[in-house]
Amino acid sequence: MNTDAFTAHESNVRRYCRAFPAVFARALGATIWDETGKAYIDFLVGSGALNYGHNNPDIMAPAIEYLFGENILLSLDMHTAAKRDFIEGFVDWILKPRGLSYKIQFPGPTGTNANEAALALARKYTGRSSVMAFTNAFHGMSLGSLAVSGSASTRELGGVARHDVIRVPYDGYPSQAFDSASYIDHVLSDAGSGIEKPAAIILETIQAEGGMNAASAAWLTEIQRICRTHGIVFIVDDIQAGAGRTGDFFSFESAKIEPDIVCLSKSLSGSGSPLSIVLIRPDLDIWKPGEHSGTFRGNNFAFVTAGAMCKMWSDKRFTAGVERTAVRLQTHLARLVAKFPRYIEQKRGRGLMAGLKCRSPAVVGRVHDVAFENGLLIESSGPNRDVIKVLPPITITDAELDRGITILEHALQEQDNA
Amino acid sequence: MNTDAFTAHESNVRRYCRAFPAVFARALGATIWDETGKAYIDFLVGSGALNYGHNNPDIMAPAIEYLFGENILLSLDMHTAAKRDFIEGFVDWILKPRGLSYKIQFPGPTGTNANEAALALARKYTGRSSVMAFTNAFHGMSLGSLAVSGSASTRELGGVARHDVIRVPYDGYPSQAFDSASYIDHVLSDAGSGIEKPAAIILETIQAEGGMNAASAAWLTEIQRICRTHGIVFIVDDIQAGAGRTGDFFSFESAKIEPDIVCLSKSLSGSGSPLSIVLIRPDLDIWKPGEHSGTFRGNNFAFVTAGAMCKMWSDKRFTAGVERTAVRLQTHLARLVAKFPRYIEQKRGRGLMAGLKCRSPAVVGRVHDVAFENGLLIESSGPNRDVIKVLPPITITDAELDRGITILEHALQEQDNA
Amino acid sequence: MNTDAFTAHESNVRRYCRAFPAVFARALGATIWDETGKAYIDFLVGSGALNYGHNNPDIMAPAIEYLFGENILLSLDMHTAAKRDFIEGFVDWILKPRGLSYKIQFPGPTGTNANEAALALARKYTGRSSVMAFTNAFHGMSLGSLAVSGSASTRELGGVARHDVIRVPYDGYPSQAFDSASYIDHVLSDAGSGIEKPAAIILETIQAEGGMNAASAAWLTEIQRICRTHGIVFIVDDIQAGAGRTGDFFSFESAKIEPDIVCLSKSLSGSGSPLSIVLIRPDLDIWKPGEHSGTFRGNNFAFVTAGAMCKMWSDKRFTAGVERTAVRLQTHLARLVAKFPRYIEQKRGRGLMAGLKCRSPAVVGRVHDVAFENGLLIESSGPNRDVIKVLPPITITDAELDRGITILEHALQEQDNA
Amino acid sequence: MNTDAFTAHESNVRRYCRAFPAVFARALGATIWDETGKAYIDFLVGSGALNYGHNNPDIMAPAIEYLFGENILLSLDMHTAAKRDFIEGFVDWILKPRGLSYKIQFPGPTGTNANEAALALARKYTGRSSVMAFTNAFHGMSLGSLAVSGSASTRELGGVARHDVIRVPYDGYPSQAFDSASYIDHVLSDAGSGIEKPAAIILETIQAEGGMNAASAAWLTEIQRICRTHGIVFIVDDIQAGAGRTGDFFSFESAKIEPDIVCLSKSLSGSGSPLSIVLIRPDLDIWKPGEHSGTFRGNNFAFVTAGAMCKMWSDKRFTAGVERTAVRLQTHLARLVAKFPRYIEQKRGRGLMAGLKCRSPAVVGRVHDVAFENGLLIESSGPNRDVIKVLPPITITDAELDRGITILEHALQEQDNA
Repeated sequence: MNTDAFTAHESNVRRYCRAFPAVFARALGATIWDETGKAYIDFLVGSGALNYGHNNPDIMAPAIEYLFGENILLSLDMHTAAKRDFIEGFVDWILKPRGLSYKIQFPGPTGTNANEAALALARKYTGRSSVMAFTNAFHGMSLGSLAVSGSASTRELGGVARHDVIRVPYDGYPSQAFDSASYIDHVLSDAGSGIEKPAAIILETIQAEGGMNAASAAWLTEIQRICRTHGIVFIVDDIQAGAGRTGDFFSFESAKIEPDIVCLSKSLSGSGSPLSIVLIRPDLDIWKPGEHSGTFRGNNFAFVTAGAMCKMWSDKRFTAGVERTAVRLQTHLARLVAKFPRYIEQKRGRGLMAGLKCRSPAVVGRVHDVAFENGLLIESSGPNRDVIKVLPPITITDAELDRGITILEHALQEQDNA
Repeated sequence: MNTDAFTAHESNVRRYCRAFPAVFARALGATIWDETGKAYIDFLVGSGALNYGHNNPDIMAPAIEYLFGENILLSLDMHTAAKRDFIEGFVDWILKPRGLSYKIQFPGPTGTNANEAALALARKYTGRSSVMAFTNAFHGMSLGSLAVSGSASTRELGGVARHDVIRVPYDGYPSQAFDSASYIDHVLSDAGSGIEKPAAIILETIQAEGGMNAASAAWLTEIQRICRTHGIVFIVDDIQAGAGRTGDFFSFESAKIEPDIVCLSKSLSGSGSPLSIVLIRPDLDIWKPGEHSGTFRGNNFAFVTAGAMCKMWSDKRFTAGVERTAVRLQTHLARLVAKFPRYIEQKRGRGLMAGLKCRSPAVVGRVHDVAFENGLLIESSGPNRDVIKVLPPITITDAELDRGITILEHALQEQDNA
Repeated sequence: MNTDAFTAHESNVRRYCRAFPAVFARALGATIWDETGKAYIDFLVGSGALNYGHNNPDIMAPAIEYLFGENILLSLDMHTAAKRDFIEGFVDWILKPRGLSYKIQFPGPTGTNANEAALALARKYTGRSSVMAFTNAFHGMSLGSLAVSGSASTRELGGVARHDVIRVPYDGYPSQAFDSASYIDHVLSDAGSGIEKPAAIILETIQAEGGMNAASAAWLTEIQRICRTHGIVFIVDDIQAGAGRTGDFFSFESAKIEPDIVCLSKSLSGSGSPLSIVLIRPDLDIWKPGEHSGTFRGNNFAFVTAGAMCKMWSDKRFTAGVERTAVRLQTHLARLVAKFPRYIEQKRGRGLMAGLKCRSPAVVGRVHDVAFENGLLIESSGPNRDVIKVLPPITITDAELDRGITILEHALQEQDNA
Repeated sequence: MNTDAFTAHESNVRRYCRAFPAVFARALGATIWDETGKAYIDFLVGSGALNYGHNNPDIMAPAIEYLFGENILLSLDMHTAAKRDFIEGFVDWILKPRGLSYKIQFPGPTGTNANEAALALARKYTGRSSVMAFTNAFHGMSLGSLAVSGSASTRELGGVARHDVIRVPYDGYPSQAFDSASYIDHVLSDAGSGIEKPAAIILETIQAEGGMNAASAAWLTEIQRICRTHGIVFIVDDIQAGAGRTGDFFSFESAKIEPDIVCLSKSLSGSGSPLSIVLIRPDLDIWKPGEHSGTFRGNNFAFVTAGAMCKMWSDKRFTAGVERTAVRLQTHLARLVAKFPRYIEQKRGRGLMAGLKCRSPAVVGRVHDVAFENGLLIESSGPNRDVIKVLPPITITDAELDRGITILEHALQEQDNA
């Protein structure tokens, strides 16, 4: 394994390469091979950016054809045929079937670019500067997104004070006994609460980095009601939980809510190519032309692969398969929880966005190591890194899924010898 | 021209598509075709993100081959063979020949991600929170970068107060009579100046959005000296001016300075695929593993094309060609300045990063329209949008360059009839 | 009543003079006379700044003598005999008998100056910038104190964003069902809570402006424990509740806590002359000489009257009298609550710092008007101005107290005719 | 000298008492006596708060009479006879003779309370949050005033970031070669300058703490013009330079400007008793009743003495005397500058607000010590503490002035032996 170039020249900030000490070369579906030919099942999938697996042929074939045609690759926000195709596909195959009607903004291609644009628009729309965000939230690494994130280490990163953020407890925080939504409603109604009316409430329906905490449908509905009552823009950051991860395309479909703004990125392109969009309730789209920009908002390679991804959702067999796989995964995990009560405290998450809350970070660390040794890539999350994140491709085959779970099970078994 | 999808579904924020009302489809080198087959010379090149032209075959051939091989596309910051090749290429063909020794950080793939990482690192390193930035600066659209940008409309965007930024006059601001560097030195030395010692000074050597203002080598050298004297991290945002734009790979080579941190993006991938890096003086690389992250920092498609781009700089014929083209462009522009004193006030910029300061925004608007009509894409910059930005590919052929200039000249000529 | 000068020349900001439309001239004890000779019982006492009544002879006699002697009036922080006498009196008669040992800082003479100094010292000591403050808190009108205040209208005043403040629920907020102290402890212990460890927790043991909300001894004790556990400076703003108002000298004596910093002002001088002090746990007194200043910190007239006030606390008959008066007041108020359930919801506060929470602001407004008409000055507080503030001098005679209560009772009775 | 109480119980923050190690007891006019009976000439006068000398009989006689009458001492912002008399006196004897028409606001009684109120009003009036302030400015010790102050040590005090302040160079900063007013005008007119339009420009006409820097009438006039052109509220902080210090009542009279807001405090009460007012251009007085408050804004003792002070300005002999004394002081200082070029660089300030810029802080320190030894209280200012501040009472007798100057001259002479 030749990693001298990384050691000598890459910043100390690199992390996953330390957790997975291999040089990866090829990948297909849920399997990834290192340079030596060793295969791994991928339950990490680019932190949720490869929901459709590696090199999904339905997605990559049109992309390769596109490149051969000397078509436009980068176009800022000029019109291109590929962009038009994507917009039409997204509207016809994703929005319309769900009865949704949003304007689409193309910010810079990362999730944090989308969140920053959403927050800026909400502030512009309401004329207010504060936004309300939750305990254990994670929204990205640029300053506006850092400010709304909950993790202490993340927040310290910017090196400047985090302003204009009102921190409130997420669903079930600090415990189920506390009615977080009612508290939020109260402080927004009380002139002496010391809490300004915010421009927006931003949330993830499932907090991935925060520990795979899934909000209940009832709580999400109540937050939406509070936003409407107080004239607050309701933003769902669906960057990790959206684009199919929960089994539905949007993570909030089952809660039957309709946020004012939705941010998508990560798996949106289907290929791992950087792309993000901000979905905006039409009357909220008060942007002036050019008011928000970004060089890479016109990544046409990603438009092509994202269009192909959208099309997959028009195929009943595809959606039925995802649904079935979600059930299979949940069944597997329920079994593991029952089998390893000494190590696992609780199943977390929803659909294919699953987690196992363990009794300690040490358990998680050992599981990770043994699993890697045996050919499974898996990661942790949560403020104490004690939650195993289980994010297989939503297109994973039963065989690959079962193989991944078997390796995971074996790694848990091995705890007895630790 | 079918643009209904854009009108119906895309946010009002779209801008370039209004300035260039066409649907673009194919592109090669400096030429871009719309759906009707009409060809345009491209003097905009993705706001400087396509310095090597569209679909440069030296860059795209290995990329297509890479896709065929079912190689890794997205890898977070795990080791991949493609990433290793890029690092080695960048070190061997770019850094070493210039006597530079930097650690490379891969943040999210946009320019603003790179600037945010650089500012965060400088704040972490110095323990200070303020940064010093310049009049008419532009550094990006996320909150940390917005804060250091100078444009009022850009700064208003975030909707929150811009904190921890010390604004100082750029070289030649408000006029050449004022010694900006000496002023900066003075306020940093005076305990009563009301200006804290900043973590960093961040600057563009040529302010693109700010109006193609080129700083002198003497001023840059003095700013570097001030940074060293006062223990301030010196950051060059080389996102638009770097990666070959000025004729050299880095925009600051001719000034013989060596910044502590350099940010690159835009043309870094050579292909228009999103990629950015932060170059860090090794002793400043105090990042802890995982302290800064970003899903799309492992865009392997871009690693492949960026590696191919780096290799081009090892070819003397290539660099000689760029140099010759820069001279040819400057000669053309000098001629236009001399010919149209009624419309043009001054030539701006340096190398292939050129601008024509016009007597009014109206002139620029009309030139833009007539040029577009005749097959030239060209844009404006500056706080009053009265500077014509001339950014041809640095690989443009003489024929294409001359044709572009001819269209521009004709558009200026047409002013007489306005 | 000649009020032309006020109408013509004083700012619109004046308020109490609108609520009490008279021109006042003389005052003694709990009685105040207007220019026409009409007498009023004073249950407002300068918003708690005249706890010892108007022109208390024990306090004013030495002051008049001091003036006759051409003694020093203003001394910055130079040594003066009067200041020495005050320090000795405060230590001997107030601190020592209570087993307290604090260093005394003399900031500018207003309460907000004291709070600003306390917050600045806590930030300096801990190196942290945030402070934790409570719903419905009130700490003053300069920017640092505004920031920690809870009232929306107060907070809007500064016209700038209120930074570096973490807002948490006070004891019993939003209802007794919510365990505020446990919530605070939780967020300070959770690395993902999004809440930084603050430099200080600042609180009033009884929130006067916030509606006469009295914290329980158990809650105060728990907050002190949390501060000690997490290394947070515990600041009690005793500006309105201290200096005798609750019957004890400090409002927190009955809770048996010992805050790290205590701020006193208002009634501290005994005479209404501006004076404030910050009491600092000795090891926390890391101020450098001159680091905090203020022209009027050396108000020797106030030192003389404050010294006389301190001496009063060495007199058992005085303290017994105050205690007895507190009981008498509480008995009166309990009776009123029982008698007027239609108008009064709840008795609030503690000792001589009492409030009647009414069923509506309208009730309070009418009571105020009828009481004024009949010779009683009384004010309201709370975010909705629906709490009658009952603040007689702690030295009030039984006759004056009973007369005030009789007027109040009559004003409540009159509600039936409203 | 018994100073045990200070050492044992007062905070380390005390400073002047270290510089002047004596216990002061009595004072009259320009003379102050310590407990041992030693007399000192006072050229410090409470940092400018005792312009009318200690215990000025014209001022103190009515105050003592007032106390004897059991008149109101503290009245919040209720009407009192004493307050009415002060308002009428201030209007008739100060404002009207100068053709000025301001509304008077009574904030808390310290200078910083006044500045905070002024800044809050300007922000409310304009709806903007930033204010523009100058190098070497000093405006007070609460957070809003700290933010606009220039001194690094002062600014560090608050322990939080200083926001919403735009720092610009004062007249003559960094040198007379730089046209500060023109620079300010330029950045306010340039959309790319990175400098928002502020709510207010706040300045001292003579920067006392900043080193006795006097702005020229031309510069002040130009700043006023810029404010009017750009719709910015022009605030003069006349706390130290006003109330007679320069020879005129307001420091800006000779410049013939008329600021939108003027803040007065320090010597306003004439007696050293805390008092401050904010003078507001009538159409700017958009305060709502009660929007700004402060317990000690109704210090009637100070109203009485301030009224007596105002009356003095109606006496031609008084004003002529002040004028004559100013000339006498300036003549003395010019002589010292000429005599001690080795130690003194420059005469600073104006009228009776004078300074001697010395060649080093060491010179100033030694002069201070020798002068104190010989019976003169004198202080320093400036970012490097190298300016001797000469602030005698404006009512000083020729004999006292000459004696003070003689001691100062001798202390300078002694430098030769240092």
